Amino acid sequence: MNRMSSCIFCKIIKGDIPSFKLFESDKTFAFLDINPLSKGHALVIPKHHGEKLADIPDDSLTELLPVAKKIAIALGATNYNILQNNGRLAHQEVDHVHVHIIPKPNEAEGLGVKWPQQKIDMGELKALAEEIKSKM
Amino acid sequence: MNRMSSCIFCKIIKGDIPSFKLFESDKTFAFLDINPLSKGHALVIPKHHGEKLADIPDDSLTELLPVAKKIAIALGATNYNILQNNGRLAHQEVDHVHVHIIPKPNEAEGLGVKWPQQKIDMGELKALAEEIKSKM
Repeated sequence: MNRMSSCIFCKIIKGDIPSFKLFESDKTFAFLDINPLSKGHALVIPKHHGEKLADIPDDSLTELLPVAKKIAIALGATNYNILQNNGRLAHQEVDHVHVHIIPKPNEAEGLGVKWPQQKIDMGELKALAEEIKSKM
Repeated sequence: MNRMSSCIFCKIIKGDIPSFKLFESDKTFAFLDINPLSKGHALVIPKHHGEKLADIPDDSLTELLPVAKKIAIALGATNYNILQNNGRLAHQEVDHVHVHIIPKPNEAEGLGVKWPQQKIDMGELKALAEEIKSKM
């Protein structure tokens, strides 16, 4: 089997694995996460199979946030996180790009965030910006 | 002052506050976070002022992930998180929608994630999916 045919999210898109579907279009599919961090935790995915954000064509990325917004509004969430993880170290568990919509109703439920701010020199930041721009 | 004229990100877009700019188009602006969680931590924002995802018109959302992808590729990041926080409880600090691109080079740097998975009944999930769909 190639990566795509063994991908659980590709199987969900095809309907080979059932899901609690919320939305579907030509390029996009959305459904409830069955291991939610809070009530209403949903996933929006491109139908195009790709492991990380960098692997998805732009025209399969454009609809993801508008659909996430539509779901957030339907959930009536006041506090919520939109999260897309890339790589094991960054907490990605399924190797098909997925955007989490995670309501944050209280401290205990929803995404837990740790924010280990680094110290950085402004001169270094300036040089880094130039370096990144030169690669874009 | 109204909310928009006092918004620090609106001032950055206008150039009234300097930034380490990475990208600019009609609808989108990207720059380095000056309080980074890791080297290369960047922000992509819609020029349209709005506090939360639900407040931004779709046509100002479509370019955010393609630009985040462009930056992730330029950074050469293998592990990285794309995060957009809505509301204080969900760790939002500036009330103008912003998408973080946060490289995760190691356990100590980058976004720290806690994943407090909830138990949920499949029947409840099914009913919830129907309820959400009815509101979309």
